Amino acid sequence: MALEAFDNGFELRLGGQSILRHSADAPCLFIGSGDAHVEGLRGHYHIEDHLIERIALRHAEVAGDRVRLAAHPGAPWRIELVFSADDDDAEIHFLSLDPSINRLWFRVPGEAGEHIWGGGEQFSHFDLAGRRFPLWVSEPGVGRDKSTLLTWQCDQRGGGAGGDYYHTNFPQPTFVSARRYALHVDSSAYAAFDFRNPAYHEIEIWGVPDRIELFARPHFTDLVGALSTRFGRQPPLPAWLLKGAVIGLKDGAKSFDRLKVYEDAGVAVSGLWCEDWIGLRETSFGSRLFWDWQWNAQRYPDLPARIAELKDRGIRFLGYVNPYLAVDGPLYAAAAKAGYLVMRPDADEPYVIDFGEFESGHVDFTNLAAAAWFAEEIIGRNMIDFGLSGWMADFGEYLPTDVRLHNGEEGMRAHNRWPVLWGAVNATGVAGRGMTGESMFFMRSGYSGVQAHSPMLWAGDQSVDFSRHDGIGTVITAALSSGLLGNAYHHSDIGGYTSLFDTIRTPELAMRWVEMAAFTSMMRTHEGNRPRANTQYDDSPELLAHFARMTRIYAYLAPYLRKLSDEAVATGLPCQRPLFLHFEEDAKTYAIQTAYLYGADLLVAPVIEAGRSDWTTYLPAGVDWVHVWSGAMHQGGQEVTVPAPFGQPPLFYRAGSADAALFSGIAAF
Amino acid sequence: MALEAFDNGFELRLGGQSILRHSADAPCLFIGSGDAHVEGLRGHYHIEDHLIERIALRHAEVAGDRVRLAAHPGAPWRIELVFSADDDDAEIHFLSLDPSINRLWFRVPGEAGEHIWGGGEQFSHFDLAGRRFPLWVSEPGVGRDKSTLLTWQCDQRGGGAGGDYYHTNFPQPTFVSARRYALHVDSSAYAAFDFRNPAYHEIEIWGVPDRIELFARPHFTDLVGALSTRFGRQPPLPAWLLKGAVIGLKDGAKSFDRLKVYEDAGVAVSGLWCEDWIGLRETSFGSRLFWDWQWNAQRYPDLPARIAELKDRGIRFLGYVNPYLAVDGPLYAAAAKAGYLVMRPDADEPYVIDFGEFESGHVDFTNLAAAAWFAEEIIGRNMIDFGLSGWMADFGEYLPTDVRLHNGEEGMRAHNRWPVLWGAVNATGVAGRGMTGESMFFMRSGYSGVQAHSPMLWAGDQSVDFSRHDGIGTVITAALSSGLLGNAYHHSDIGGYTSLFDTIRTPELAMRWVEMAAFTSMMRTHEGNRPRANTQYDDSPELLAHFARMTRIYAYLAPYLRKLSDEAVATGLPCQRPLFLHFEEDAKTYAIQTAYLYGADLLVAPVIEAGRSDWTTYLPAGVDWVHVWSGAMHQGGQEVTVPAPFGQPPLFYRAGSADAALFSGIAAF
Repeated sequence: MALEAFDNGFELRLGGQSILRHSADAPCLFIGSGDAHVEGLRGHYHIEDHLIERIALRHAEVAGDRVRLAAHPGAPWRIELVFSADDDDAEIHFLSLDPSINRLWFRVPGEAGEHIWGGGEQFSHFDLAGRRFPLWVSEPGVGRDKSTLLTWQCDQRGGGAGGDYYHTNFPQPTFVSARRYALHVDSSAYAAFDFRNPAYHEIEIWGVPDRIELFARPHFTDLVGALSTRFGRQPPLPAWLLKGAVIGLKDGAKSFDRLKVYEDAGVAVSGLWCEDWIGLRETSFGSRLFWDWQWNAQRYPDLPARIAELKDRGIRFLGYVNPYLAVDGPLYAAAAKAGYLVMRPDADEPYVIDFGEFESGHVDFTNLAAAAWFAEEIIGRNMIDFGLSGWMADFGEYLPTDVRLHNGEEGMRAHNRWPVLWGAVNATGVAGRGMTGESMFFMRSGYSGVQAHSPMLWAGDQSVDFSRHDGIGTVITAALSSGLLGNAYHHSDIGGYTSLFDTIRTPELAMRWVEMAAFTSMMRTHEGNRPRANTQYDDSPELLAHFARMTRIYAYLAPYLRKLSDEAVATGLPCQRPLFLHFEEDAKTYAIQTAYLYGADLLVAPVIEAGRSDWTTYLPAGVDWVHVWSGAMHQGGQEVTVPAPFGQPPLFYRAGSADAALFSGIAAF
Repeated sequence: MALEAFDNGFELRLGGQSILRHSADAPCLFIGSGDAHVEGLRGHYHIEDHLIERIALRHAEVAGDRVRLAAHPGAPWRIELVFSADDDDAEIHFLSLDPSINRLWFRVPGEAGEHIWGGGEQFSHFDLAGRRFPLWVSEPGVGRDKSTLLTWQCDQRGGGAGGDYYHTNFPQPTFVSARRYALHVDSSAYAAFDFRNPAYHEIEIWGVPDRIELFARPHFTDLVGALSTRFGRQPPLPAWLLKGAVIGLKDGAKSFDRLKVYEDAGVAVSGLWCEDWIGLRETSFGSRLFWDWQWNAQRYPDLPARIAELKDRGIRFLGYVNPYLAVDGPLYAAAAKAGYLVMRPDADEPYVIDFGEFESGHVDFTNLAAAAWFAEEIIGRNMIDFGLSGWMADFGEYLPTDVRLHNGEEGMRAHNRWPVLWGAVNATGVAGRGMTGESMFFMRSGYSGVQAHSPMLWAGDQSVDFSRHDGIGTVITAALSSGLLGNAYHHSDIGGYTSLFDTIRTPELAMRWVEMAAFTSMMRTHEGNRPRANTQYDDSPELLAHFARMTRIYAYLAPYLRKLSDEAVATGLPCQRPLFLHFEEDAKTYAIQTAYLYGADLLVAPVIEAGRSDWTTYLPAGVDWVHVWSGAMHQGGQEVTVPAPFGQPPLFYRAGSADAALFSGIAAF
C-alpha cells in the first residue's frame, strides 16, 4: 500500500514520487457549499457561484487504507477517503459524511515549472500551467480572445456568442502532469482545474465525486496508453476513408454535380458529405437544416440510387444528425407521444428551446427506451439502412440545467455527461448494424468516456481565419490535448466554419488548412456557415489543383495512417502527438502547440499565420530530421526556418525512419 | 440595549426594526483567509482572490453586550463582537480571536424590492440592488460599459484604460437602505458590497474591521445628516465662487487673452483656472503638466501681477497640484533628501512609477513630517501665498500595494485611505493660512472621511459623450450617490474630459453639459485632454452666448446656492439631492438617477441624450410643479414631457416655494 500515515497527515506515493500529501498546515481537502447561478443560451453558459462556506479539513485520522477528515480535532468527521492503490495506480473513493457538502476542493502538490496538459479538448492553451480552467460542456464561442474586435462583436452584437480561453465542447476533468502522472476526477459535476499557484494544483468540484483516480508511469507514452485504456479506445479507421477527402457540399441534388468537378480535377475522394440530406428550413438568418432525421426527397430526389452510383465509384455518402428534434417534424411528435423527451421542471410538457427561429426538444437519453429508439429507428434505420456511411453527430452541449429527466438525475449532473450519452446512442446504432469500424460518425462534444463511443473527433467550429484563439491554429491544440486523453483520431472542418461580421475565408487560409489536414486522420471540407460569401475549393482551377494534390498526398500516406490506426487500437496512442511524447528528455518540446508528430516519425508544423512564405519550427533533440521538400538534413535540438510556399507545408521526418522511403516520396507530388 | 439573545442566536433592533439577525441556520458572520493577487497599472487594478477558507460562524454565545462566535459548539472562538447601541445607532466592535483571519463576510437581512444606495461616488448605478460592488480606490476607467466599442478599444488598445461599472475614484464602504438605516464599515481594507441576493446583503472585507456602524432614522434627511456628522462636513462655499464660472484654460499666458473673450461675451466669470501654471513637458502623447508644484515663469511670465490684475476685476486665479513629484523636478530631490517619499519594498530607494514617459515618486503622507512639509511648503507657500485661490487636487488613486511606508502600514490598507490623507494635506495647508472656506480646492479621489477635508468634489474624467456609463449622465449618479454620504458639493468638468479614439466633444454635448452645470455647486470648464480636437466654448459666438447665458443664470441663483450652502453646513444635506430624499412616500422616486432636486424646491432633469428636442421626466407626487420656461403647472406623481431646446434645460420648481419668484425669474434670461 502506497499510503503512509504520519503525525496528523498522510502521503500517497506512486511511481516512486509523492503525488498526494496532507498535513494540518497544508491540507489536501476543503469542503463547503455554494449557491450556483447558471444562465444558458444556445450552448453558452454564464455560471456564477455564490459561495457560502469553504472549510479546510486539516485533521486527518488514518486507519489502514481509510482516512477520515475533519476541520480540527474534535470537530465532526466530514469526509472519508478510501484508498486502493498499487505502485502505479490509485483510486481514492470519497464518502461524504455530511449531506450539506456541495463544493469540494482537492489539492495535490505542484512544482515550479511543471507543465500540465489535458482538461479535455482545449483550443487555446495546450500547457494548462498558470491558468484556471472551468470544465463545463459548452459552445467554445467565436471570439475567444478578449483582445480582438471579433470577440467584442460576438460578445456584444452576436447574441452572447463570444467565448473565453477555457470554453470547449469537450472538457474533461483529467490532467497529465510533466511529473509523469495523471489525475482524473470521476464525476460529471461542474468542475474547475486551477493551476495558477505553482505550489499546488487545486481541483474544484460542485459535489462530492465518486472517486479520484491517479495513474503514474515511467514514460508519457505509457501514461497515454493507461488513460486510453481507462476511457475507451476507438475502432480502426475504415478502409474507405483513407482513399481521400470527404467533400462537404450542401447544395441539394446539385452537390452531385459539384462533386464531379472535384473528381475531374483529380481530387482523391473518399466520400460526399451532405448535411442537408434531411432538408432545409428558411429563417431570417438564412437556410437552416430541418432537424428531423430522415431523407428529404424534395432536396435529394432519388438519393438511394445516387448513393448506390457513388458507391460503385468507391465513394461513400455521409449525412448529419443531432440529438434534438424540431417541434414541427414527425419524429418530435412520435418521441413526445412515447414520453421520450426531456421535460420541463414546472409543467408536464417537453422542454423545448429556441435554436434561432425554430424550437426543438431533447430526446431523453437517460431513458434507456428513448436511447434505444434513437439508436434503432434513427441511427439504424433512417441513416445506416438508408445508405449513409457516416455522419456528423453534431451538438450535445445544450442540455439546460433545470430539466426533469427520466432517471431523476439533476440537470447540473447530466449536462456534462450528455455528450457521452449522445456518443453511446450513435455507437449503439452503429453496433446494432454490425458497422463498428465501418460507419464513420464524428462528434465535437465530449466528456470523460466519450472515447469509448466516438470513433472520430472533429474540432468544432473554427473561425475562418488565422486568429490565435479562434482560427486554424486552435485545431492543433485541440488534437494534442484531446489526444493525450485517449482520443486517437481528430480532424477539423477544412477551411474553418464560422464566418461572422467581416471574417471571410480567404484562398490563402483555405490552402493552409488543406496543407494541415492532409496530415490528420481524416480530410473533410465544409462550406462554412455562409457558403456564398466564402472561398470554396471549387472556386478556381488553381485552388482545386492545390486541393487535389494534398488529397492525393493524404491517400498516398494511407499505409502509414493504417499503421497509426493499428497502433491506436493496440496502444491508445493518438495519430497526432505532442512532440514531448516521443522526446521526453527534451524539455523544450513540452509547451509546443503549433507543431505535432504525425505518428512517431513525421513532424508537421503547419503554417498558421497569414502572409508567410517561410516558417520556423523547433526540431526535437537527439535525432536528425529530413526536410521532406528539400531533402535537407537538420540536427534536432534547434529551431529551423524552411521555405513554405503554398503546397509545401513544413514537414520533417526522422532520419532513419522505417518509413523514410514513403516520406521522401511526398516530395514527388 | 437593543441586542437581544435567543436560543443560539441574537438580534439587533434599531429604529424599531430588525437590522441584524443571527442564528445557526442563517449566520451573520463568516471568516476565513485568502491569498490576494493585485496588479496595478496607472490607477487601474486587477485584483484576484485565491480563497483558502470561508467558515460560517454558526454558534454564538451572548453575554450582555458581547457575543462570541465559533463554527459550532465546542469549536474555538474565532471572533468576539462588542455591541454598543442606543435606539437608533449601534457600533459593533470586532475582536479577532484568530490571527489567521484575513477575510470576513458579514450579512444583514435583505428585503425583496429593497433599494440600496451609497458605496461612495458611483458612476453607473445609483441603486445598488442586484449587483456586487468591489470597493477599491481606482481610476474609474473610460469605457465602463462592456457593450460599447469604446470600452473594448480602451480595454485592449488603450493600455488597460477600460473599466467596469463599479470602478470609482471614490468608493466608500457605506450603504443606505430604503429601510431607513445606513451601515458603515470602519476599515480601509479592500472590501465588496454584494447586493445580488434579495434575502441578505453581504459585506466582504479583506481583514477584520475595527467596527461596523449602524444608523437608523425615521427620515432619509435625518439619515443623511447623521452620516455627514459621522464623516465630516464641508465649509460654506466662498462668496467669490458664486459670481460665475471658473474658466479652465491651459494656453500659458495666452489664457489671459482668451479669458477676455469670455468676459467680453458677457460670461459671468468667478475664476481663471490654469492647470499648466507649473509648466509643461513634451511627450509623444502630447503636452503633459510638469509635476513640480511651483509657478513656471516661462509659461506664465509675470503671473503674480496678472493674478493681482484679475483680482481687481473680481476674478480669482486657480492652479493644479497632485500628490506625486516628478523625478526630474527640484521638489522630488528635496523630498528624497528629507526621506519624505514612499519607498520600494525591496530596495532603499523611492518607489517611482511611470505616468507615461515620465516617472514620479509619492510623498509619504503617513510620515507626519512629510505631510506637514507638503501642506506648508507646497500648498501654503507655493500655492496660497503665491496667489492661488483654488486648485484641482488631482489623483490620489495610484498608491501601489507593495510599498514601504513610514508608519509601517501595509500598502493594501493604506491604498484606500490615501485620498483621505491627500485631502487632509490640502485642507491643512489651507487652514494654515486661515483660508478655510475661502480657498477652493476640488478632489476626485476619496474614501470614508475625505468629507472632512475635501471642500468640493469633482466627478473625475467623463468621456466627452452621451454614453450611459462614461458620459454626461454619470455626473448626476455621482452627485447623488456621494451626496447621500455627506459630500454636499459636487461638480464636473463642463463638457467632459476624455477624448479617446473617435470620441469628440460636440457643440451639442458642450451645451447640454453647461445647462446641467448651471444647477450645481460650481461651474468650471475644462478644455479636455485634447483641446484642439474638441469643441471649446470660445469656438463660436453662438456657443459663447449660450454659455454666457447659463453662467448668468448660475450667478443669478447665487442667493439660493448660498442658502443651500448654509443648509449643508447646518444639516449636512447636499446641494444636489435624489428625489426620494424629500419624497420618501413616493416609491417611484427611489431609483431615479437622471434627475435631481437642487435644494428641496428645484427639480433639474438635464438632457443627457443626443438629438433630443424634448425631455421626459418624473415629477414626485404630493405637490404641484411649475415648469420654469413655460410657467405651466404639472401635478406630481406622473411623467411629463416638456420641450427642451438648447438653453432651456428641463427645470421645475415646487409650486408655493418660498423661492418661487427667484425661480420664475430664470425664464427671463
